[in-house]
Formats: sequence, C-alpha cells, structure tokens
Amino acid sequence: MHVAFQGEPGAFSEEAAGILFANHQVVPLPSMESVFEAVVQGDVERGVIPIENSLFGSVHINYDHLRSHDVSIVGELKLRIRHCLMALPGAALDKITSVLSHPQALGQCKTFIRKELPQAQTVLAYDTAGSAKLVAQSNDLLQAAIAPRRAAAQYGLQILASHIESHAQNYTRFLALAQRGEGHTLAHTGDQPLKTSIVFAPRSNVPGVLFKSLAVFFLRDLDLFKVESRPLVGSPGEYLFYLDVEGGTRDPVLQLALEHLKEISAELRVLGSYPQGPTWDGVDDG
Amino acid sequence: MHVAFQGEPGAFSEEAAGILFANHQVVPLPSMESVFEAVVQGDVERGVIPIENSLFGSVHINYDHLRSHDVSIVGELKLRIRHCLMALPGAALDKITSVLSHPQALGQCKTFIRKELPQAQTVLAYDTAGSAKLVAQSNDLLQAAIAPRRAAAQYGLQILASHIESHAQNYTRFLALAQRGEGHTLAHTGDQPLKTSIVFAPRSNVPGVLFKSLAVFFLRDLDLFKVESRPLVGSPGEYLFYLDVEGGTRDPVLQLALEHLKEISAELRVLGSYPQGPTWDGVDDG
Repeated sequence: MHVAFQGEPGAFSEEAAGILFANHQVVPLPSMESVFEAVVQGDVERGVIPIENSLFGSVHINYDHLRSHDVSIVGELKLRIRHCLMALPGAALDKITSVLSHPQALGQCKTFIRKELPQAQTVLAYDTAGSAKLVAQSNDLLQAAIAPRRAAAQYGLQILASHIESHAQNYTRFLALAQRGEGHTLAHTGDQPLKTSIVFAPRSNVPGVLFKSLAVFFLRDLDLFKVESRPLVGSPGEYLFYLDVEGGTRDPVLQLALEHLKEISAELRVLGSYPQGPTWDGVDDG
Repeated sequence: MHVAFQGEPGAFSEEAAGILFANHQVVPLPSMESVFEAVVQGDVERGVIPIENSLFGSVHINYDHLRSHDVSIVGELKLRIRHCLMALPGAALDKITSVLSHPQALGQCKTFIRKELPQAQTVLAYDTAGSAKLVAQSNDLLQAAIAPRRAAAQYGLQILASHIESHAQNYTRFLALAQRGEGHTLAHTGDQPLKTSIVFAPRSNVPGVLFKSLAVFFLRDLDLFKVESRPLVGSPGEYLFYLDVEGGTRDPVLQLALEHLKEISAELRVLGSYPQGPTWDGVDDG
C-alpha cells in the first residue's frame, strides 16, 4: 500500500504516516491538495495530512480540502512535535543571519528566535523538512532551518539547538484519508471508541441555528471534541461548521442526531468515522 | 492622532485605517504584534488590524494577540478586497517566473495563478504591499507581486492584471484598537447598533459546557455573529472561544448573559463594545 504525505522526506507528516501505516511505502508530494487528489484518483491508497496543532491552531486549508474532495477520514494520530535548529556542519548559532521554516514552525519557535537569534531574519518556506533541504543545498553557513530531527540526518545537517518550541505541550493531530467509502486499515486501532467528523452549513433562515445545531448532540448526551468554523465562500458573514463528535455512524443515537441536524442544515456531509487515535511521543534521541 | 497598521505603505490595512480614522496620521509598523504593543504603550492612539477574510477565514494570530494585550476593540470595518498583479514597467505576464505575496493573498488568487501563470513559482512574503516593494527593488522583470492597486502607484509598478481574486465576495474585516478602557473616536459610527466581542475559556469539568455557553445568549434572544475557537496553550484538546454578540456592555440583558457565562467559565474577558461597522467597497479606478 502507498501512503502520500505533503512535504519533503524527513517531515513530521512522514513520521505520522509511518506510525499510522507501519511497513507501507510513503510517498512525498509537493502540496496538501496533491495529497487529496492522489487519494481521490487512486494514485495512492492512503494520505496523511496535519489538521490541527495544539499551539498554533487548525490547518484551515485542509478543512477546506476535506469538504471539496471525495475522501473519507479513516484514522487519526496525535504526534508530539519537537523542533530543532539545524545548519551545515561548521555553522555557529551566533553567526546565523537567516532562519527558514514553515510559518507555523516559525510561530511555534518565536520565543527562541527572539532570544537566541536576534540578528537573524525569518524566511517563510512551504514546509519544515523542505527548509532543511534548502539550507543543505545553499552551501551557506549563515542559513539555518527549523525542522524535525530526522531531517538533519536526511540532509546532512548538524543540530545547533534542540527542543526550541515555545511550549512542551506541542502536538499535531494528523488525519488518515482514503477514497470515500473505503474502510480502515490502520496499524494502530485496538478497540478504541469511534469518533465521527462532519461538516455542515446551517440554514441561514433558522433563528439561533448554531445553538440548535449543537443541541442535536447535547440533548442526546453526545460529546463534541472539536468545533471549527470556516467562511462560506460567496456568502460573507455565513460559516460552515466542522464538528468531531463521539460515536460511529452505525450508532443509532448518532444517526438520529444527524437526521435531526439535516432538518436545519443547508448542507451536511459525514467526513468519516474512525477510531479515536493514540498520542505518540515522537522520536527524540537528542 | 496616530493610527498604526501592519505592513508597508500601500497596504489594505492602511486603506482601512484611513477610512476608520479619516484625517489622522497613519503609521506603518513591521508586525501585527508591534501594532498591539504600540497601542498598549501609548506610542500611537489607535491601531487597525485585519481579523477575518470572507474567503480565507480568520487571522488567528490576531485573536491570540487580542487576548494577550491590554487593548479594547473600538470599531470595525468590512473592506472589499481587490487584488492586482503588478511588476516593473516593461514586464510581461507570460514571462513572469516568480509571484510574491502574503500567503492569504496567494490563496485568494490561486485560480488565477494556476490558469495564467502556470510557469511561475509562488514566493511567500509577510505582506502584500511589502511584496510590491520587493519587486520594485529587485530590478527583475521576471518577478511580480499580488498587492492592492494603491501599492503599484506607491512603488512605481505597472498593473499586469486586475480583479484576480477567485471570488468577487472578497471582504476583509478590520478592527480598530485603543488602549483598554478608551472610548470611541471613529470617523464613521452614525447611530449603528452595538456589537460586543468577548473571549472565554469554558470550565473543563462542566459537561456540555460549550452548548451551555452558547445557551446563555440564545436563551436571552441575543444573536451571535461569529464563533471562533483557538487552542488553549498548554492544554491540548481544550479551546478558547471568541464570540461576537449583539448589544453593548451597558445593555442589561447582555450584562446578565455575561454574568451567567462567568458561572461556567474559567476565564472571561470583554474585548470591546463598538458600533457594527460599515461595508466599504474600496478603491477601484481600474
């Protein structure tokens, strides 16, 4: 089986793909959208995407992609994120003038950057491991990247500083994707309880419709894990809502709740039912 | 009075600042955080920040700044966003190899980029007008920036294409900030009804606390305009909620609702009461 992720080899997404689908082939792709498209078109059997970071918030573009592509969520994983500052062998921390990384990684390490690299400018890149690759190719001892430890080994860089994230409670939640309607083939499911992700657009002519939408779950004692709103394109001031709720779509109570929600929604789609994922502490040999 | 905004001269934020506070001096600052700090420290009397775009969603970093800085929201404005592609005089659309802009602007124009500039790579920059400035300084006819029309005049660039945003319903909502406790001095308030913005952390030990939190408003017939969640740093899986609700903090019904919300919140702060802002169609002489 082939499992696509966005980024360069060495990325956190590659690590997550390896944990969710052990002993399968991982495939790096250039963009989040290309991961969704590869899954929809059957070029790969599975995709793994980041959806939320505990410090920085949701990866909103992926919420939009979940709605616009025919995929199902078949699993999730929370991965501890530890960032390293890395540069070419011979580089020194106090000489670094440019720090490259993904905007979220730069945001997660801004306390470190401000304190230890006041002389450096930050340079935005599309992903963390990709910024390590750029530094390796630059032949420039004044450049450094913020990336996972595994990226240093991948690209022959040395670690200048470890654990540079602002807060220890730094986790990224990844989702495993399959073509719509496919079942689960996760490495780690055990007998975990299920979780269901949905997206819905409340009917704009129903007074208090968001409150009523949440009521369909709370009145049936179904816990919500996450509520995320996204603008409804073309209708400024209106929103789509993404909910994670306990239970699987075969549970009669959740089925009734979803039928109830349909009564007051202009659009409703189940994005997937999947085992509530494990928390993984990540690789740290530093 | 001095009004700070983030970005270079020519930015949409500068236009918003000029509309919200006509005939006052606008001050460009390098980062969102520096705008908040300038307001808190009294270096400027007002700040103007983007908080939400109708296509791309919220500017989450600014929600975090609203909570961590002693500012009050004193006004809002919805500004129509029209993007232009601009380059040095003599440049040609089919020769462009790099397109610079803020990630949100690149996202808002991705249909145009994919169709008209398939040969170009996108380069991330911290702001739209700043990317126009970089192109002007580059002396490189192969570079282009996505920026407001006013930035072309500011930096001596020519417009290669206008209205390149994917959807016409493209508005950014800006907030006007003052030191905490300061009153309103907006150019445009009229007798608009008031809106109040709050942030709260639900008590994690109250079952169904999000539903109950929304109930304090809906049971009192107070409409919510916006619900935004942000991760609670240090507590993965817990969230802060930002709400915009109708009414001012002097309205007895809203006061009762906020007292009720305090009963089930670990933290609650009123970010400001301010007139519901106008929608501005923006400058378009193209």
